[in-house]
Amino acid sequence: MKTTRFFGVAALALFAHQASANAVVVNQGISEQEVLAAQQGWCAALVNISNTHETSGQAAAKTLAENVIDAAYGYQMGAVLFKPTLTVNPQTVRATRQGALAYFVGGDTSFPQDTGFALRGWKQCEIVNAAIFIAGDSATTMGKVHFTNSAGEVTTVDKTWGFVKDDAGDLRIVLHHSSLEYTGS
Amino acid sequence: MKTTRFFGVAALALFAHQASANAVVVNQGISEQEVLAAQQGWCAALVNISNTHETSGQAAAKTLAENVIDAAYGYQMGAVLFKPTLTVNPQTVRATRQGALAYFVGGDTSFPQDTGFALRGWKQCEIVNAAIFIAGDSATTMGKVHFTNSAGEVTTVDKTWGFVKDDAGDLRIVLHHSSLEYTGS
Amino acid sequence: MKTTRFFGVAALALFAHQASANAVVVNQGISEQEVLAAQQGWCAALVNISNTHETSGQAAAKTLAENVIDAAYGYQMGAVLFKPTLTVNPQTVRATRQGALAYFVGGDTSFPQDTGFALRGWKQCEIVNAAIFIAGDSATTMGKVHFTNSAGEVTTVDKTWGFVKDDAGDLRIVLHHSSLEYTGS
Amino acid sequence: MKTTRFFGVAALALFAHQASANAVVVNQGISEQEVLAAQQGWCAALVNISNTHETSGQAAAKTLAENVIDAAYGYQMGAVLFKPTLTVNPQTVRATRQGALAYFVGGDTSFPQDTGFALRGWKQCEIVNAAIFIAGDSATTMGKVHFTNSAGEVTTVDKTWGFVKDDAGDLRIVLHHSSLEYTGS
Repeated sequence: MKTTRFFGVAALALFAHQASANAVVVNQGISEQEVLAAQQGWCAALVNISNTHETSGQAAAKTLAENVIDAAYGYQMGAVLFKPTLTVNPQTVRATRQGALAYFVGGDTSFPQDTGFALRGWKQCEIVNAAIFIAGDSATTMGKVHFTNSAGEVTTVDKTWGFVKDDAGDLRIVLHHSSLEYTGS
Repeated sequence: MKTTRFFGVAALALFAHQASANAVVVNQGISEQEVLAAQQGWCAALVNISNTHETSGQAAAKTLAENVIDAAYGYQMGAVLFKPTLTVNPQTVRATRQGALAYFVGGDTSFPQDTGFALRGWKQCEIVNAAIFIAGDSATTMGKVHFTNSAGEVTTVDKTWGFVKDDAGDLRIVLHHSSLEYTGS
Repeated sequence: MKTTRFFGVAALALFAHQASANAVVVNQGISEQEVLAAQQGWCAALVNISNTHETSGQAAAKTLAENVIDAAYGYQMGAVLFKPTLTVNPQTVRATRQGALAYFVGGDTSFPQDTGFALRGWKQCEIVNAAIFIAGDSATTMGKVHFTNSAGEVTTVDKTWGFVKDDAGDLRIVLHHSSLEYTGS
Repeated sequence: MKTTRFFGVAALALFAHQASANAVVVNQGISEQEVLAAQQGWCAALVNISNTHETSGQAAAKTLAENVIDAAYGYQMGAVLFKPTLTVNPQTVRATRQGALAYFVGGDTSFPQDTGFALRGWKQCEIVNAAIFIAGDSATTMGKVHFTNSAGEVTTVDKTWGFVKDDAGDLRIVLHHSSLEYTGS
C-alpha cells in the first residue's frame, strides 16, 4: 500500500509479524504450484485413459474418462468453454459434459466425427508453458503441449487452460482451447 | 486438482518444475504479508497525522490526511463502505472521500459532529488480528486495534477491513467498519 | 471498451445482439436483487428463530439456528469473519460455526457469556442500507438494522455483511460485523 | 440464499425494494452487453486498421494499432496470454505489447515472420459466439470469427477471448487464443 512509503517497509514487516501471530488465516488464492499440478494432472489422466483403453477396452476407458472429466473440469458450473484440438464445425465447441466425453473416448452417435482423442495410444504428454496469469481467484496458462504416441510420433498443440478453485479447494478447468500449430503453410 | 489423486503429487511436482522454467508468470493474488503491511500502513498513517497536527497544525494534518486517504482507500472506485468508530446517526456511514476526511481531521461544516479522530494525540496503534480471509482478489481482516494517546490512555476498537488490489498492484481499503468494544453492560 | 469510442456504441449494440443469439451464456455475477434477498433472508431467519423459541423451546430454536447457519454462512470455507453485536473480549470474534451458534441460541458452556441473541423475542427486523458494493464475485453491504422485540422496543445496530456466491449459486455470508450505535457518549 | 426457502421469495423482494431505496450502490460486475460490445470493438478496430492501411499507409495503420492495443488489451497488467491465428514457433505466443503490435501490422525485425494480419484488407469481421462465461470480475467467450477481405474471401477462426474490467471500468483483453479451423485433415 502506498502509505508504506511514508514509514519504511522493514519496520512495518516487524509489526506485521506480531499482528497475525494468533489469527485464523484462510487463503483461497491460487498458487503457481497448484496450477502446474493441475496441468500435470490433465496430462497424466490422458495417458492413463490411453493405457486403460489398450489394456481394458473402450468401456473401461470411458468410465475413467467420466471420472476425470467430473474431477478436473467445471461442467457442473453450467458450461465449460472447451475447443478441443480436432473437432469440426458445427460441433467445434464442447460446452457440455457429453460433448467432452465424446471427444475423449468416442462412441457417441450424437458426435459422429469423434473417434476418441484419448484412445490414440498416447504414452507421453509434455507441457511447455509460455505464460501463466494468476488473477487471484482464477488462473490461465498458454503454451505448447507435446503428445507422443506408442510409435514415437509427436503431435504438438497450442493450448490455453483456464482454472478456477471450487468450494472444495480444487482447481477445475473452465476454459480449454487447443489447436494444431500453424506452420506457415 | 482431484486428478492428482490418480498419480501421486510428488511426481507431478517434478514435471511441474520443468513446465514453467521459461514461462512469463504474472500473479495478481494477495499475500498475507501484503495485507499485514497495508494494516500497519494505516496505523502508521494515523499516528503520523496526529504528530503532524501537534507539530504543524490542523491544515498540515488535513493535507497529510488527504494524501493518506487517496493512497490507502478506494474512493475513486465509486464508494467505500466506511463506518468509523465515533460517527453518529444520520451521518454514520462515510461512503464519500469528503466524509472520511471530515472524520479524520474535522473542520468541515457539512459534518458538524466531527472533531477529528486523527487529531486526538495518538502515539501508538497496535493491531491484533483475530482472522484474515484472502479470497484471491480481495482480503478481509477482523480483530482489535488498540490506540494509545499521549496520556497513555488506551482506546480499543473492533475493526474490520476489506482490501482489494488496484491496477497498480497496491492494496486499497474498500471496506472499514470500526466500533467501540461492547463491554457487557 | 475504449475501442468503442472509434465507432459508436449504437452500431456495436446492433451487431452484439446477433453475436450471442445462440450462445450458451453462464453468468455467475451477483445482482443487487440477490444481495437484498440474502439480507432479508437473514432478518426473516432471526425472527423465525425467536418465534420458534417461544412456541417450541430452546432445543427447537437451536436446531433451526444450525440449519440457518449452515445455509446462510460460509463456515465450510474455513472461517467466517463474524463480530456479533453483543460479544465481549476475549470471545469477541466468532470465526467458527460453534461460536456463531452459541451467540444466536446460547446454552454452550464454552461461551459462558452467551445468552442467545436470537432468543430475545424479536418480532421485526428492518434493514436500511447505506451502501452496497458488488465487486463481481463478492458483495458487501453497510447500514442500519432495526430489531423490534415483543414489547415494541427497538435496538439499532450498524451492520456490515460480506457475501460470496458458492458453487451452488447461493450467496453465503463470509463477513459480518455488527455493533451498537455510537451515540456520542 | 437458502434461507429464502423458509419464507418465500416474493415477500423478500418486497422488503428488499425498500431496503436499498437510498443506498449508494456500486456494481463492478461485468454484463453480457459489455462483453459483446468489447468483442464488436475488436472487430471494428481490425477493419479500421485495414482501411487506414489502404488509405494512409503502414505508418498510420501502426499508430492506430498501438492505440487499439493500449485501449483494448491488458499489457500494462504484466502480460497478455495472446496466441494469434498465424504465428509460428518459436514466436507463437505474444505475451508482450511489442509482439502483439508486430503481429497486427508487421514491420518489426524482431518478428521476421510477421507480415501484418491487420493489413490484409479486411472489410468485415463477424463474431458468432458459442459460449460466454461471466465469472463476476472476468468474462470469457468462445466461438467463430469470420473475416472477409476485399475480394470477398472468408477466413474463419476459432477464437477465445478473456476480459477483465480495469479500475476505470473498461473491459480489457487479458487472454486471446485464435486458431484456424480444423477441417478433419
